[in-house]
Amino acid sequence: MFFSVDPGADASIGGMAATNASGTLTVRYGGMRDQILNLEVVLADGRVIQTGSLAKKSSSGFHLNGLFVGSEGTLGVFTEIALKLHGIPENIVAARCFFKTVRDSVDAAVSILTAGIPIARIELVDSRSIKAVNAYSETDYPEAPSLFLEFHGNQAGNQEDIEFVKEIVEEAGCLEFLFETDSLKRALLWKARHELNYALRHGSRELASMTTDVCVPISALSDNVEFADTQLDVLGLKGGIVGHVGDGNFHVMILFDPNSLEEIDKAKDLNRQIVNKALLSGGTCTGEHGVGLGKLKYQRQEHGEALDVMIAFKQLLDPNNILNPGKVLPINEKNA
Amino acid sequence: MFFSVDPGADASIGGMAATNASGTLTVRYGGMRDQILNLEVVLADGRVIQTGSLAKKSSSGFHLNGLFVGSEGTLGVFTEIALKLHGIPENIVAARCFFKTVRDSVDAAVSILTAGIPIARIELVDSRSIKAVNAYSETDYPEAPSLFLEFHGNQAGNQEDIEFVKEIVEEAGCLEFLFETDSLKRALLWKARHELNYALRHGSRELASMTTDVCVPISALSDNVEFADTQLDVLGLKGGIVGHVGDGNFHVMILFDPNSLEEIDKAKDLNRQIVNKALLSGGTCTGEHGVGLGKLKYQRQEHGEALDVMIAFKQLLDPNNILNPGKVLPINEKNA
Repeated sequence: MFFSVDPGADASIGGMAATNASGTLTVRYGGMRDQILNLEVVLADGRVIQTGSLAKKSSSGFHLNGLFVGSEGTLGVFTEIALKLHGIPENIVAARCFFKTVRDSVDAAVSILTAGIPIARIELVDSRSIKAVNAYSETDYPEAPSLFLEFHGNQAGNQEDIEFVKEIVEEAGCLEFLFETDSLKRALLWKARHELNYALRHGSRELASMTTDVCVPISALSDNVEFADTQLDVLGLKGGIVGHVGDGNFHVMILFDPNSLEEIDKAKDLNRQIVNKALLSGGTCTGEHGVGLGKLKYQRQEHGEALDVMIAFKQLLDPNNILNPGKVLPINEKNA
Repeated sequence: MFFSVDPGADASIGGMAATNASGTLTVRYGGMRDQILNLEVVLADGRVIQTGSLAKKSSSGFHLNGLFVGSEGTLGVFTEIALKLHGIPENIVAARCFFKTVRDSVDAAVSILTAGIPIARIELVDSRSIKAVNAYSETDYPEAPSLFLEFHGNQAGNQEDIEFVKEIVEEAGCLEFLFETDSLKRALLWKARHELNYALRHGSRELASMTTDVCVPISALSDNVEFADTQLDVLGLKGGIVGHVGDGNFHVMILFDPNSLEEIDKAKDLNRQIVNKALLSGGTCTGEHGVGLGKLKYQRQEHGEALDVMIAFKQLLDPNNILNPGKVLPINEKNA
């Protein structure tokens, strides 16, 4: 069996539950909220509650489980977490393909999803990121928008899915399609995806970075990614785009000179533009990393009057505001 | 595309959302809560809120979506529901196998699940139910505990999964394994599963029925189903057992003479015994049909102090108790 949520190297189970984290396998196995059967939670007044049960589903009472997952420590302290595991697939195949434009690559991803193929991973890496990886690792990947794919299933089924996906991506303008079954060769094929965070940072060590985290409806994904791609160039900022495009979630890593007020403003402005476009598309300001302090300013815009219900729940369970105060909910703007 | 939740012939989308309904496909595609992206909800005070967004995942704010799904109309009125759809699988294969004992059949189901096979349907039908179908439909199914299976995928993958499942069920004592790909033959193979509710009722038209709905951890499923099976005989009651065993959810349809106080007591007693055993196993009193009035008496036992948090949420959002009063939460037992 294996645990399917993989947001990054240093994530803890508690932190992942607190932020409703997800990652590259979410398109197939779901995010953190989908893996949690039960939480033992200590409330602000010292009561200890169980939010779920060990059954895979329930129609009993209110679903407190889902409410506490993603509450970032503001409603209670998690002291026990019961998780789901998944069977390790018999056969895994990795694939990589690249395209002329970022829109072509996202359109290809959308076509794969709507064809009902149970893809396990489908990651976008833009040409800027590939360039940074080539510079960092002395590799020679084609410096073009790429999709990195993974198939989980049995051998015969994966082979048939790969043939089908190959047709779909070729129709969408794919320039090259490679796949590997051997575990070492799979790792090599995916190397660019694994190293891109280091590569982007390494290549511009004098610059600071800011990362966006919007998630949009699949039908609006191409427009949103293309918008971010264009605006990076328009504003003359360095950076790169990566996306868990199977979920509609993508990150723009914006690099900027921390000593230039103009660049800081440009970076903040781009972040705002990307969030605004995502919200106008029916999406969310944070797909997997949480609100914290940075996304407080978008909570009213995203949730409207529902935000008042959230604030009322917080005040009911934590009237003295002792649990991670100041996070998730912009309580002082309530009457603004 | 298709919508994957199939609790029964007359279910409405609103009712399914209100009870967090599920059905035979839940083992693969999830229950109702997993399909809901967003709800427009009218609260008791007239405010209209959106509980989610159109993105497939989010880490923004509190997850009100999951809380309102399954609240049975007690927290607000749903006026709009945004759902997920799934791609129609390229290839569907149905299968049926039967076993010597109900424990063998459930053990086989558990082995299929833990092998990581992405089964789309896996339904238990006990020998009593098969007997009723044979009498009702003049069929000649082997009158033994049976599993009804369905595989969704591509042709090559399904073939390989079927070969694997055949090995697993034979090791678990399967006496016969049949499968069909053609849609008409598939329907015939599954006929007994589709007709069993009518058959059980038809065969005993003078009797009333009561149906249990527990869901237990997969590791406790064999014990719980075998217990129900034995107790039906011990108490001398008619009935049958069917189960969405991939979720750990099973129903005992208990038939009893509505004019005999003794039989009514026996039926109620069996229902209580089955729920108590499920709760002791870490399960839930209702896997998919909701609390309503009938399961009020188990809410404290199942949820402990968490029930007080649910009651506080209800009183916060509906202080005058105007929304489906008396359902889900045993408010008057609060200080009992």
